[in-house]
Amino acid sequence: MSHRCCAPVVAGIALACLVTMAAAQNPTVIATSTVQATVAAPSQTRFLLPVPASVQWGEGRLRLDSTFTVAVRGHSDARLSGAVWRMLQRLEKRLGVSLTRSPEGAAPFALSTDFASATLVVEAQGPGQTVQTETEDESYTLDVTSARAVLRAPTVVGVIRGLETFLQLVEGDRSGFSVPAVTIQDRPRFPWRGILIDVSRHFEPVAVIERNLDAMAAVKLNVLHWHLSDDQGFRVESRRFPKLQEQASDGLFYTQAEIRAVVAYARDRGIRVVPEFDVPGHSTSWLVAYPEYASAPGPFALEREFGVFDPTFDPTNERVYRFLDRFVGEIAALFPDPYWHVGGDENSGVEWSANPRIQAFKRARGFATNEALQTYFNQRLLPILAKHGKRMVGWDEILEPGLPTSSVIQSWRGRATLDSAAHRGYTAILSSGWYLDHQRTAEYHYAVDPLPATSTLTPEEAARILGGEACMWAEHVGPETIDSRIWPRAAAIAERLWSPREVTDVADLYRRLAVVSARLEETGVQHASHTDRMLRRLAGSADIAPLAEFLRYAQPAYFGERSQLQRTTQLNPLTHLVDAARPDPFTRWRIGALVDSLLADPRHAAGRGELTAIFDAWGRLLPQLQAAADSSPLAGEAFPAADVLAALGAAGVDALTFLGDGAVPPDGWLARITPTLDRADRPLGLLRLPFGSALRRLIVAAGQPH
Amino acid sequence: MSHRCCAPVVAGIALACLVTMAAAQNPTVIATSTVQATVAAPSQTRFLLPVPASVQWGEGRLRLDSTFTVAVRGHSDARLSGAVWRMLQRLEKRLGVSLTRSPEGAAPFALSTDFASATLVVEAQGPGQTVQTETEDESYTLDVTSARAVLRAPTVVGVIRGLETFLQLVEGDRSGFSVPAVTIQDRPRFPWRGILIDVSRHFEPVAVIERNLDAMAAVKLNVLHWHLSDDQGFRVESRRFPKLQEQASDGLFYTQAEIRAVVAYARDRGIRVVPEFDVPGHSTSWLVAYPEYASAPGPFALEREFGVFDPTFDPTNERVYRFLDRFVGEIAALFPDPYWHVGGDENSGVEWSANPRIQAFKRARGFATNEALQTYFNQRLLPILAKHGKRMVGWDEILEPGLPTSSVIQSWRGRATLDSAAHRGYTAILSSGWYLDHQRTAEYHYAVDPLPATSTLTPEEAARILGGEACMWAEHVGPETIDSRIWPRAAAIAERLWSPREVTDVADLYRRLAVVSARLEETGVQHASHTDRMLRRLAGSADIAPLAEFLRYAQPAYFGERSQLQRTTQLNPLTHLVDAARPDPFTRWRIGALVDSLLADPRHAAGRGELTAIFDAWGRLLPQLQAAADSSPLAGEAFPAADVLAALGAAGVDALTFLGDGAVPPDGWLARITPTLDRADRPLGLLRLPFGSALRRLIVAAGQPH
Repeated sequence: MSHRCCAPVVAGIALACLVTMAAAQNPTVIATSTVQATVAAPSQTRFLLPVPASVQWGEGRLRLDSTFTVAVRGHSDARLSGAVWRMLQRLEKRLGVSLTRSPEGAAPFALSTDFASATLVVEAQGPGQTVQTETEDESYTLDVTSARAVLRAPTVVGVIRGLETFLQLVEGDRSGFSVPAVTIQDRPRFPWRGILIDVSRHFEPVAVIERNLDAMAAVKLNVLHWHLSDDQGFRVESRRFPKLQEQASDGLFYTQAEIRAVVAYARDRGIRVVPEFDVPGHSTSWLVAYPEYASAPGPFALEREFGVFDPTFDPTNERVYRFLDRFVGEIAALFPDPYWHVGGDENSGVEWSANPRIQAFKRARGFATNEALQTYFNQRLLPILAKHGKRMVGWDEILEPGLPTSSVIQSWRGRATLDSAAHRGYTAILSSGWYLDHQRTAEYHYAVDPLPATSTLTPEEAARILGGEACMWAEHVGPETIDSRIWPRAAAIAERLWSPREVTDVADLYRRLAVVSARLEETGVQHASHTDRMLRRLAGSADIAPLAEFLRYAQPAYFGERSQLQRTTQLNPLTHLVDAARPDPFTRWRIGALVDSLLADPRHAAGRGELTAIFDAWGRLLPQLQAAADSSPLAGEAFPAADVLAALGAAGVDALTFLGDGAVPPDGWLARITPTLDRADRPLGLLRLPFGSALRRLIVAAGQPH
Repeated sequence: MSHRCCAPVVAGIALACLVTMAAAQNPTVIATSTVQATVAAPSQTRFLLPVPASVQWGEGRLRLDSTFTVAVRGHSDARLSGAVWRMLQRLEKRLGVSLTRSPEGAAPFALSTDFASATLVVEAQGPGQTVQTETEDESYTLDVTSARAVLRAPTVVGVIRGLETFLQLVEGDRSGFSVPAVTIQDRPRFPWRGILIDVSRHFEPVAVIERNLDAMAAVKLNVLHWHLSDDQGFRVESRRFPKLQEQASDGLFYTQAEIRAVVAYARDRGIRVVPEFDVPGHSTSWLVAYPEYASAPGPFALEREFGVFDPTFDPTNERVYRFLDRFVGEIAALFPDPYWHVGGDENSGVEWSANPRIQAFKRARGFATNEALQTYFNQRLLPILAKHGKRMVGWDEILEPGLPTSSVIQSWRGRATLDSAAHRGYTAILSSGWYLDHQRTAEYHYAVDPLPATSTLTPEEAARILGGEACMWAEHVGPETIDSRIWPRAAAIAERLWSPREVTDVADLYRRLAVVSARLEETGVQHASHTDRMLRRLAGSADIAPLAEFLRYAQPAYFGERSQLQRTTQLNPLTHLVDAARPDPFTRWRIGALVDSLLADPRHAAGRGELTAIFDAWGRLLPQLQAAADSSPLAGEAFPAADVLAALGAAGVDALTFLGDGAVPPDGWLARITPTLDRADRPLGLLRLPFGSALRRLIVAAGQPH
């Protein structure tokens, strides 16, 4: 999977979420399993993310202090205790007091058997599936009164979800910590809620994967789609075919012990791990090691650039299937999940078309197209997967006539494929619109729904839409930057996949996202410290403050823009200002909201004051950045955007004056500023200013007679 | 080793460094191996830390860009290439461009064989010692011209040191990156330059140890003193005595494979690893597992509190020596270093005195004191260590009559012991004055010298002073906080141990420390992101900005104060405001310098402006912190210090006015403020305001007739 298609795949849909929602009938129930649109108020959703299926706030609060204890009744096992212990460790650090432990020592915490006095009673009916699948029951109920909290779930996975909700409810005030009284009945809207992490284009160490699994669990995601091979590297140790890691990984691969550890780590958090080994295309790394299975003569070299490349398995070579059979037979044992992702995307077909033997094979079999030949390849692959206990998942290119409906289709080229797959009897998951590497906003991703209200699918077809996955492709991310590209935006996608369809209030999303983002750091992900950390290296001996302030207002250019402008390879250091920047800075939403409130009431004093301060700050930044660039060559990359920012700031101050006074701007004012507004909508160096449309609304309004 | 003695062990010495130094004869040579006092100018030391033995700046600059190559000639081995490759990776990230690689791929980088065109030529004469010891040659010369850089060293360790110097020379300006032309001849003043890391009171994962080894290498430290056992936990896997880790570690210990990996990681960076297994006292954890070797009847439990405890090995029990022989025999194989630290400190003697059999043994042998009995114990230990190829290191308590001079004395109780040991023929290292957990300033530690100019030791005795170690005791640090307690202050100690005695300019230290501190983050240590990261959890849903601003001006109370006030145990979460604070915030030095320059010229406009802004900010903080405390109970811990800060700010503004106008303050002004100044010199909650003396100087001056 790659990025030939870089255009916004859900163009236009981002606006849908701005449509005002009808008020809920019962304001204390923020969402129910029946279809009913909702305006969320802060007092209703607090800092719950994803919003549960049903929340009924009660009276009073459960105080949390050093006397906090947990009692477990019903089913108990190591996974359950592990989840409780991790929750207790996080709670202890938040409260700043040590909680009750077993007499023997620091770990494990003591689980009380005194149900009457326990602060939190956890009750699971059973362990859940031996191998977690998409049919796992993840539901739970959480009842909190001023006396105690009770968490009940049919499975340990439901308990794991409920414990995260409990932690999200912890609040503080001058009198201490507490959880508000509440009754929550919760279950996910979709059973398949994942993140794809590409470790081929840039490798990610186990520690990075594990901390992201913790963060996924915190927002109730349940699938790690691990993209383990591609043209740029093969990342798994094979003992049967050791040349894969020896010759095609640069030494950057996971040992089998590490794979097992990650899979166990994920299972402990209620997360499945679906491996992807992309075939027959995107397979340069395989063929570096085993060129004899290619459709063209080798040798091949690992790809350092990004795009779609020609090396492809030879579908006419019986030894290819024996090789894949033995490979799957070995590696399937590492991944207990019933699914195996075969990729199947972006086969260029160049080698197939150029190879007379393959063309003869096509003719002999009556395959009109290379797509038909790939379907043949897939049909050969299916019994191999089945033999090793696996069902096939593939990108939507595999959806060709002849593909058995036991396959799962992952749609990356558009929502239409998703419906088409479901209509034709396939189960399907959505990734189109959820490419985190595209550097779009949380709001944009939030507006994407695998099963929107406008869907024309029958209930039976709709049930085949299993959910979706956010995709973290790794052309432009490495271990230092990946967290900042996943979080907090993936939390918005997590909410879309978990919460009722009607939970769509963008303002409330951003309010919660700001706090949840900070709390996610508790899991070890480093998105929140990202910018300052990157800037300390980039700034050299200069003060990072102006650069940090600047990056509060700038974000990376979109994926396609950066690809074209910078033309990075796998070897380029990802240490530039664009890498220190973060997508969808919170100021974007804030500035938009301030502009909208000001346009509704041009004399609104608080909004005026805050916007004026922001616009003034933009003007002051430029000379400070120039000083930084005197000792930091990379700081100079700020200038294209900083120049426009300064001009926008000046124009914004003027606009506020005109709007506030009701004054008419001088002739030609709007025309003079329009080119700046136009520049602000385009990439500026490798950066973007993400609030161009808000500024345009403000300035155009100020430029009108009023 | 613990903290019974918490009083400042080098009281008074901190002022010594403020004494003005005589100017160097040759201003372009900042220090030489001859004794000559120096005032360092920024243009002389740039961002070199530790300052090399001899630096001669030249004309011109060596440009660094994507054409940068390294050629290695002379001796070459995997350790050398590894060091070069790590340097290249860091350089590549700083420059933001990919450097030349081998055709095969991402790693390793290509080492050029074209010496004529290489940007950096590295030339080692040999590998250095097979097992690095304190006699290793760490010297190097670095010659940089506008054409090339040449790094020469007798050993690979010298190359490793020189590569760090090269990276410290990298500077940027508008035209790009470069290194100034220079000739550096460098070698350490002391051969033993270490950090003790206590992993018993709080365990530190391997990743924490490894990132600190990288940071140590960056400032040319060369010993990790690994404090692996104490009353609170035993941290090494023993296969012969598995109950040690099974019963006395809470599951928090290093496997033997991990130990070997850390030792190899350290060796790759030119760092020795000296293990400490504290006996006969500080040994509760041993005796939890094997109570039969104790001086009192067990059973014992792991100690959760901190201090000096009674469980002690029985020196009269022959089976104790057989046990220790077998233990050392097993574990010595993990640690190739010729030294083995036996601890030997703070034996309470309570169990010995209470045990009639032990008392009878003392009488029978003619030992007058428990100290004499401990010397007997040490004398029994010495042949065991020798049998397994180890020399003894111990805390200064072991310096009793009868101890062979082959032992190394580590002085923690005062400098006097160090001189006494050297005088009596022992080699010795200093730790007194270098306890990082005491939360003193870099300036304070910097003023401590193992061999000050005033030393009365003969040259032969002086040669026995091998150096010293900064000590990171772990009562109050865990994995989240340890980096912030070690860095950047340990860099000041590193300079004291490496650089000529005459390098003592504190202003220049702080100037360099600010930049070096940021660069250290490149090694993975997390001190620079520490405060904000901790505050994001602590602040809950509140904005961290006021808390972060507050902690720019506050630091943790001293070790003894916190111990008394908070009485933490091993189980207390280290997530309070005191943990988010950092020792010796840079504002302390800055405010002191501003006050001094203002007192020299009361109308100095720039200083007035900056101080006024700081004082005003203190007043504004209080209401913001009060708002934060409304949703964050732990934020309220700021109030005692924030109250005083606000009062000091108001007084400071008044003082500036009086000084600026030459006005006489109203009657009683100074008397009214003095109680606030007094409060500012004491702990405020668990925090301290570190610039009390500067404010007092300012306010007292303003209160005088002038």
